[in-house]
Amino acid sequence: MKILITGFNPFGEESINPAFEAVKLLPETIEAAQIVKLEIPTEFKKAGKVLQEGIEINQPNVVVCIGQAGGRSAITPEKVAINLMDGRIPDNAGYQPFDTPVQEDGPTAYFSSLPVKAMVEAIREDGIPSFLSYTAGTYVCNYLMYELLYLIDHQYPQIKGGFIHVPFMTEQVVNKPNGTPSMDLETIAKGLEKAIEAIVKNDEDIQLHMGETH
Amino acid sequence: MKILITGFNPFGEESINPAFEAVKLLPETIEAAQIVKLEIPTEFKKAGKVLQEGIEINQPNVVVCIGQAGGRSAITPEKVAINLMDGRIPDNAGYQPFDTPVQEDGPTAYFSSLPVKAMVEAIREDGIPSFLSYTAGTYVCNYLMYELLYLIDHQYPQIKGGFIHVPFMTEQVVNKPNGTPSMDLETIAKGLEKAIEAIVKNDEDIQLHMGETH
Amino acid sequence: MKILITGFNPFGEESINPAFEAVKLLPETIEAAQIVKLEIPTEFKKAGKVLQEGIEINQPNVVVCIGQAGGRSAITPEKVAINLMDGRIPDNAGYQPFDTPVQEDGPTAYFSSLPVKAMVEAIREDGIPSFLSYTAGTYVCNYLMYELLYLIDHQYPQIKGGFIHVPFMTEQVVNKPNGTPSMDLETIAKGLEKAIEAIVKNDEDIQLHMGETH
Amino acid sequence: MKILITGFNPFGEESINPAFEAVKLLPETIEAAQIVKLEIPTEFKKAGKVLQEGIEINQPNVVVCIGQAGGRSAITPEKVAINLMDGRIPDNAGYQPFDTPVQEDGPTAYFSSLPVKAMVEAIREDGIPSFLSYTAGTYVCNYLMYELLYLIDHQYPQIKGGFIHVPFMTEQVVNKPNGTPSMDLETIAKGLEKAIEAIVKNDEDIQLHMGETH
Repeated sequence: MKILITGFNPFGEESINPAFEAVKLLPETIEAAQIVKLEIPTEFKKAGKVLQEGIEINQPNVVVCIGQAGGRSAITPEKVAINLMDGRIPDNAGYQPFDTPVQEDGPTAYFSSLPVKAMVEAIREDGIPSFLSYTAGTYVCNYLMYELLYLIDHQYPQIKGGFIHVPFMTEQVVNKPNGTPSMDLETIAKGLEKAIEAIVKNDEDIQLHMGETH
Repeated sequence: MKILITGFNPFGEESINPAFEAVKLLPETIEAAQIVKLEIPTEFKKAGKVLQEGIEINQPNVVVCIGQAGGRSAITPEKVAINLMDGRIPDNAGYQPFDTPVQEDGPTAYFSSLPVKAMVEAIREDGIPSFLSYTAGTYVCNYLMYELLYLIDHQYPQIKGGFIHVPFMTEQVVNKPNGTPSMDLETIAKGLEKAIEAIVKNDEDIQLHMGETH
Repeated sequence: MKILITGFNPFGEESINPAFEAVKLLPETIEAAQIVKLEIPTEFKKAGKVLQEGIEINQPNVVVCIGQAGGRSAITPEKVAINLMDGRIPDNAGYQPFDTPVQEDGPTAYFSSLPVKAMVEAIREDGIPSFLSYTAGTYVCNYLMYELLYLIDHQYPQIKGGFIHVPFMTEQVVNKPNGTPSMDLETIAKGLEKAIEAIVKNDEDIQLHMGETH
Repeated sequence: MKILITGFNPFGEESINPAFEAVKLLPETIEAAQIVKLEIPTEFKKAGKVLQEGIEINQPNVVVCIGQAGGRSAITPEKVAINLMDGRIPDNAGYQPFDTPVQEDGPTAYFSSLPVKAMVEAIREDGIPSFLSYTAGTYVCNYLMYELLYLIDHQYPQIKGGFIHVPFMTEQVVNKPNGTPSMDLETIAKGLEKAIEAIVKNDEDIQLHMGETH
């Protein structure tokens, strides 16, 4: 099995992005699956192209994209991507869309085809906080997850794909307001490794309540 | 114009639900539109039936469903409902689904057909905190919003519909952990009134960035 | 009985201070006690002078100073004032001390002489969130509370005095980050009224655990 | 130079306490100062006795006590200890005092005699979040800090002493509510090491604003 793991480069006011930093720390194989790593630019249009090239070149069985969700306290596999781009800040190319579909002819949303609950459980069993998330936002992260699932839907039906958001790494919050959660980079990387192990081991997701109370 | 406003009854450990309490405080007409109020049970299956009956009987032009999102600090119109039921707690009938679609033959998600950004702006202009939300959760609130938009899609294409989440009312957080946000019931009701005004006044949504940074 | 209630004017980036706004809404008498209201400048040195003049002129039996603690979700009577001035921002006169005692010859701290636990309970019984706080900060609020208790210690031993912090009022958080708690101005005023009732009714504080878990 | 570092054992619902776990990870010498480690029971009366015995036996130049402040996101040197015991939960011996002074004849509060701002800066320079705290709570942590400074005041005037609170370690929050901040145990230990370096290097504290905005 070959797994393509992508991570974004820094954006906004950050000089580092824990997403690709953590990806770089992953081993070359996890549970006998080959890990291929790819850095993705934080740009709405280019990100999708770079992802598609990565898929073309590597022909993976699974694609997992990683992004930063500053302010979250846990590693959060994403359940759903929506067909919408709306940026509170411009992307790294200065493009700031709003109310714009990712794909004009795409459905309103795609669910992840990864075993997201098994991933959450595997991360937690390793002593690392994890929750299932039902919003990937409206910025380049959600865009890339949607683009990935659209590509899978249209061109690569044999591939499984999804997205994982990670917290700020500890160094990033030194100058942020008191109370901002963070996670050690090594812990983020360990959590991602456990999530990938769960992907390799679980063809079907586990059956477990993991919903919200509203 | 006739607007049907629904609010849930209490659920979980709460003895009161600010959703219907606030709906009850709304005036009979807003910007010349007639307001019809309907209480909805916090039950996955029954809620949809009661909603559909309400639509049948009242034949409204607009349907706005209101629910409580405890822990939020602001009034949050919802952008999207997903085709998923996954409850962290059972509903009021003891039913606790997971990984279950709301409608077997429905799309993965529906976007609100209300002018959600105009609603957010109108609430804020009245001095009341409001943000656009991109997740309505996975409980009865998201279920009802999805059901409403599915009904509109299949039977009532002339109706516009959507959902607004409101915070805990102030009284509810007295015994909750220090730091839990809340809002006065009168302020919630005033915010809902402003949102409804925005619905009446805006056939199309306003053009404004209101996205996330992840 | 005569009670002097003070509230600060706006400071920092705020154009309004819920402290004196709430004080202005208080009735002229509470539980037969006469209420005298006094606005205090948010300046380290001048605040103490204005307070002392207010005490001289009015000869109150009780002094309660009110200040804003932005970010708190509840009305918080303060237990202790420390002999320290350390401002993260300058005061309204541009003075920004650090590591500076309020009174060179004063003790490290004073405890409030008000029945703080009875006040918390009275506010909560009215359905308004309240917690006992063990830090009044290091800015003009803590300074004024210390100054008040120093004055009482040295010149007015018959007076009882203390401080209450209140949250942002709802209007103030419209442009603050999503999640910032707030409270309606009328609710803040109602909570202060209940706290004052508790002061009038309780010569001694009630006996109740109200501590922290660390 | 000899430095005595203490850490509490687990309390409340926790089976581990990051305080002593982190202390155990400290090296035997830091900046040529000898590090002596001591575990302290989370009991109001016994903790003081164990601390005093530790001081008697080891005759340190500096004493730094470490405790857990669950919910904080950063390592927080404490500025002040108050003469008050008020527990929201019983201690490990079942004792739950309220409104009780630590020492009947003690002052209302003591300031830390450690260079707390230099400690905060040293921790931050290593990429680890740190803030100065102005409340050590009202539980066994504040009690022990007060007891230490009272002992220093009465019997060991040549010793410098103070307290540092640390966050939950990452493993502890796996089953806590989403949003609860934590820190890796190794990072906590590294932060404590940096704080101790700052103690060794700074006879006097650095001059810096580190106050609150209320």
